[in-house]
Parts: sequence; structure tokens; C-alpha cells
Amino acid sequence: MGAVAAPERLARAVLSFLTEPGDPALGALLRCCGPEEIVAAVSSDSDPNSVLPADCAVPGVSRAFQRWRARLGQVPSPARLSAWERGGLRLVCPGEPEWPTQLDDLDSSPAVLWLRGTTDLRYACLRSVSLVGARAATAYGSHVCTELAAGLADRGYTVISGGAYGIDACAHRGALAVGGSTVGVLASGLTFGYPKGHYELFGAIAETGVMVSECPPDQAPTRPGFLIRNRVIAALSRGTVVVEAALRSGALSTARHARELNRPVMAVPGPVTSDQSAGCHQLIREWGATCVTSARDVLEMIAPLGEEGARSGEPAVPADDLDPVTAAVLGVVPLRGGRGPATVATLAGVDLDTALRCLGLLAAAGHVVRCDQGWRRRRGADPA
Amino acid sequence: MGAVAAPERLARAVLSFLTEPGDPALGALLRCCGPEEIVAAVSSDSDPNSVLPADCAVPGVSRAFQRWRARLGQVPSPARLSAWERGGLRLVCPGEPEWPTQLDDLDSSPAVLWLRGTTDLRYACLRSVSLVGARAATAYGSHVCTELAAGLADRGYTVISGGAYGIDACAHRGALAVGGSTVGVLASGLTFGYPKGHYELFGAIAETGVMVSECPPDQAPTRPGFLIRNRVIAALSRGTVVVEAALRSGALSTARHARELNRPVMAVPGPVTSDQSAGCHQLIREWGATCVTSARDVLEMIAPLGEEGARSGEPAVPADDLDPVTAAVLGVVPLRGGRGPATVATLAGVDLDTALRCLGLLAAAGHVVRCDQGWRRRRGADPA
Repeated sequence: MGAVAAPERLARAVLSFLTEPGDPALGALLRCCGPEEIVAAVSSDSDPNSVLPADCAVPGVSRAFQRWRARLGQVPSPARLSAWERGGLRLVCPGEPEWPTQLDDLDSSPAVLWLRGTTDLRYACLRSVSLVGARAATAYGSHVCTELAAGLADRGYTVISGGAYGIDACAHRGALAVGGSTVGVLASGLTFGYPKGHYELFGAIAETGVMVSECPPDQAPTRPGFLIRNRVIAALSRGTVVVEAALRSGALSTARHARELNRPVMAVPGPVTSDQSAGCHQLIREWGATCVTSARDVLEMIAPLGEEGARSGEPAVPADDLDPVTAAVLGVVPLRGGRGPATVATLAGVDLDTALRCLGLLAAAGHVVRCDQGWRRRRGADPA
Repeated sequence: MGAVAAPERLARAVLSFLTEPGDPALGALLRCCGPEEIVAAVSSDSDPNSVLPADCAVPGVSRAFQRWRARLGQVPSPARLSAWERGGLRLVCPGEPEWPTQLDDLDSSPAVLWLRGTTDLRYACLRSVSLVGARAATAYGSHVCTELAAGLADRGYTVISGGAYGIDACAHRGALAVGGSTVGVLASGLTFGYPKGHYELFGAIAETGVMVSECPPDQAPTRPGFLIRNRVIAALSRGTVVVEAALRSGALSTARHARELNRPVMAVPGPVTSDQSAGCHQLIREWGATCVTSARDVLEMIAPLGEEGARSGEPAVPADDLDPVTAAVLGVVPLRGGRGPATVATLAGVDLDTALRCLGLLAAAGHVVRCDQGWRRRRGADPA
């Protein structure tokens, strides 16, 4: 799967069971020693300062070790981990090709991500926008968010959101409705899948896009976990749009993270009589967020002037730069009509899993879209 | 009435019949010679350059004189002018106490203003906001504008608008509803009163506020006249709020004038699905207009930080600075309950007209408000 050796991958998986997302002590430790050393130190009974490298003076490391050691019993067996992987989950670690390097802009970058889905996460996020907002969305907000997501997905942009009820769900569904790419970043583990009512939505996202979590698969969400998760949503995307938010909505924390990362912060205006737009107006008025009313407005903010391709809808990765297998798959996707993945696999001479994976990657890169008959080339993508 | 002699006042009145509002040739001439000289030159048959002072080299003056001379027959007799004055109209000229000196910021300041109403125009505009917008207002825009106007008037601010259907009417009515001060600036003459359907509204404005026009009383509006009138709305007020406007609405011209005068430009957001909010969103997005959602937001923009009084609702003119007659009238306005103007006149020892005029001035300056029983002191005004 990539450049990271199996022992390090296992250690990072173990750390996701021992630590909370965004733990600053873990972040500091990972800057000065390897994940295997940290796991070994936690698993021992020794004073952390006596087993860690001498130059690893991390404040609060003793208390952190106490918390982590209390969870050693929760680390699953390697067999359990393998069962999850067979069930469609995969791990991605820093240094691997699928790792979204833009996460490294965070102070407390995740140690590892759990993924489920056909799309390559890094490719999907190369051209992406986060659409976030209130769970208690109004009919207006739901309508505007769905249209915005569909418009962005239609132009080859991946829509990232948090999988919650309300605005998040409309963001994912708007992208899915036009056969676009969407990424769901959960505050729970992927097998737990919070909220439970979105079981089918999460399945649909994984079919053409990708589901993401820092938490181990079975973990329930915690209250602070939602806010900590928001930093990943902000960091994965080029910019964040708050579609509807009350004055103290959690969606504003995503905007705050985006601002700290120097990514564009945008907000959709709404009736001043609506509490669910008050947070958006506050962002525009007091934070200098850009007032956006359409997908075009959003693209003006996130597609730099030099990047003509992005605006005109050209793929993020030129066809010439694709690896031979992916290029072979692209070569058998028709311009008109559509072809099912099984036919694509047969014609390209690859197995079905490989075909699905390549199709997801090609969709994220803007080359192909899903249609009623399966997959077809996207208009505006360069001819192969 | 003031410091301007009768012949100059008459000459300015005559010029309002001869010229169009905003005529750049008239503006240039008035910077180098007096109104009586101009009227004399127009009335003669001579080449303008031979009768005007030698240093008055105004481009296009010959063509301007042709236009003005064609209208000499429209100048009414002095008897007609007097009849208008007896009918409640008054003239105000630059240099007179009631002249709003902020108009002098304009490139083409009016030569004269025709007024009708009980309030002193300059006092009324010392603390004022323009609320402008679409004639084809939505229910949302009408509601928000009425609330905004009432909120601003309630805090002692005069609401200035253009007397049109839609947003303008809601601005005036919102201020009137709380017994506040409002100024209507028409593109037609005041006796003509366009639109005719607002005959009663204009009467109500004149009762507690003031109606304003640059045009002679009987004049019908012209299409360009509406846009030219907008510069007066922008110049009279401290800042301009566009409440609802389509992308090519005339209300945007008021915003443009306000920006040229370096006055705050504000816009009320609305649903992105509403064409009547698209102009407001454009102002916020592309012009840097401030997104305002309430009277408080507006006051933050137009009440400078040092001006604590304005924010807390203190009068624009301290009671100590009032002239003796106005102070006497203020002295008999009760703190609680209310007193009708006839009683106020009797107790203050002035005639009814003087009492009404002083009450209008005191209302504009934030000292008194109308109530069911007549007039009472405004809360927050300093005790006399």
C-alpha cells in the first residue's frame, strides 16, 4: 500500500486506540520519536522520561501516559484489525501516497486515518470545498446547500462535510445527486457510524467517495470530539463555506480552523430574521468571511487565478500523469452513455476491485462521473 | 428666515425652474459668480461670455444657456411663489441656518431646496441614516426595512428615503410608527408629489418630519431625475443602507454616491434565492459594503466611537445650546404622559406655528417624541 512499513502502521493504529484525536502530547512526541517507540514506552511500566529519547522533553507526558496506559486493554488483537481491513476499512498513515499532506498544516495532525470507500482521499481533496452548517437546518438552508454542493461537484470539486443531520447531509447528498465526489469526516469511528440514521448515506458516500475518521472503528463520538474533528474538515479542503449556523454553532469552529490555516472562509447569507443565518452574518460582518451566493462565487475564492483548469472544469491530474493501470481503466470509460464497473474491469484487463478503485480515483481527479449506466467521461476532461 | 438676502433667494428659486438638478454648468457657474448675476445673464439676449465675469470660463456654458433660456417662460410670477410659501412650502438656500452643509460635499450641490414640514432639515439630518431599496420589495424586505427604520428612529435617528413604493415607503412608515423623524427626498416637485399614491404618506412625513426636493413644486419627475436625486439622499445622511435591491436597481446608485462621499455603505443580506437581495449581496461581496442585520449594526457604523451620546440615545444638540424660544418650548414638554401642541404653545408663550416648528426641531435633535397625548420628553435625553 505504500512507503510506511507494517510495524509503524500497526503502531499508529494502536495509538488511535490509546489517545484522543488532537492530543497535544501525542503530537509533540511524534515530532521527536517514532510511533513504535511511543507504543513500546506506553506498554512498559517505566517512567516515560526514562524510556523515551533524552531530547523528548514533552510537557505533561506523565499525565498523558497515565491516560493512555488506562486504555491498553482496549487495543484489539491483530486478528480484529485484519477483520476490519477485510470488511472494507483501510488505514492511511503520514508518508503514504494516499495521505493528504495538507493535514500536516495542523498543529495536531492525526496520527493515522481510518478510511472506507473507493476514492483515493488525497486525490479527492486536491480540489475540494468543505460545506458545513447547522444540524437544525431550515428549508432554505437545505435547499441552498444541496444546490451549492451539486454545483461544486458538477464542476469537479469534492464536497467535504461532517456527515451530520441538516446542512452536512445536504452537502453530501447534493454531490451524490450529480454523481460527484464527496468525503464524510466523522467524529465517531466508521463502524460505529454516528449518527446511526445516516447508515445508508455513509454507505452511498463510501461507494463513490470516501468516509474518514481519526477514531478507531467502534468508537462512539464524544462531545468535544465533534469540535476536534472539525479541524480535519477545515484542513482537508481548500476552503470552508458555512451555509447556515446559529450564533454559537459548532460549524463556526470549522470556520475558525480554516482561518487559522489561512484557507478561505466563506458564508452564505440568509434572511436576517432567521437565527440559523445569524452565525453566517456574524462571520461576514466580524470575521471578514466572503459572502457567497453560488458555486461560482465559491470557485472564485478557492481556484487561484493561474489555475484556469480548475475553473473551466479540467481534471486536477492530467491524463498523461496517471499510472498505467488507471490510464487503462480511463481508456475504456466511454464518452457517451456509460459502462458498468464489471465491464470496465473486463475491458481494461483488471479485477473488479482495482477497477472500482481506479474509477473512484478518476472521479476524484475530475476525469469520470457516474451515470445511470455506470460511468462515463466527464465533459471538459481532456481526451485520452 | 436667515442670512441670505431676498434677491439671492429669489434668484436661486428662479434657477430651480431654469435648470435641471445636478446640472454641472450651473454648479461651475455658482462657484465663480452669484445666482443673481446668472439669472440676469440668462434673462439677457447676450452671449454668456460677454455678460458673465471674465474669470468665469465654464465649459459648455453656451449650450447650457440655450437650454435655460428655453425655459424662461416657465418661471412663475412672484405672486405664485408667495402662494406656494403660504401653502406650506419653504425655500432653503446655502448659507441659511437650515441648509444641510453636508450637501456641500457634492460636486453638484443643489442651488436651492424646496421643503415642506415642521422639522428643521439640518437638525433632522445631523443624525440620520438613508434606507433605500427596491420598489418591488418582497414581504421579507418590507418587514426588515420597517423594523430597521423603527429601531433607528427609536434611538433618535432620522430615517431618510426617497418616498417611492416598496422599501422607501417602509422606511418612512417604520419611523413614523414610533413617532420618529423621517425625511422624504422626492425626484418630483413637492406639490406634484410623485408617486401620487403616496399623497397621504407625504402629508404624514411633513407633519413630523420634512419633505425635500430640488425641483420646482409642480414639476413631474424625469427618468434620469431619480438617479440624480439619489445623490441628495446619500449626501444628507451619515450612511446609506440598501435593504433590498436587484442587480441593476437604482438603489445601488445611492450606494455609489455614498461611497464617493466616503460615507458608510451598508447592505442587508437576504435569501440567496431572492433576486431582490442579489444587489445587496453584490454590494457586500464586491464593494465591501458592511453586512448589517439590525439597527444596532447600523449604529455601529455611523456613530463614531467618541460619540457616546449618539449610541446611548442622547440628543444631537445639548439642551444648553438651544435658542431661548426652543428651550422654552422644551421646558413645557412633560417627561411622562404628553401634551398637545396647542397646550405647549400656550404654556411656552409662543404661537402654535412656532411651537410646532420648535417641537419638530426638538424631535429631530432627539429631545422629544410624539406620543398618543401629543409630545413628551424622550428617554435618555438630558433633563432640562
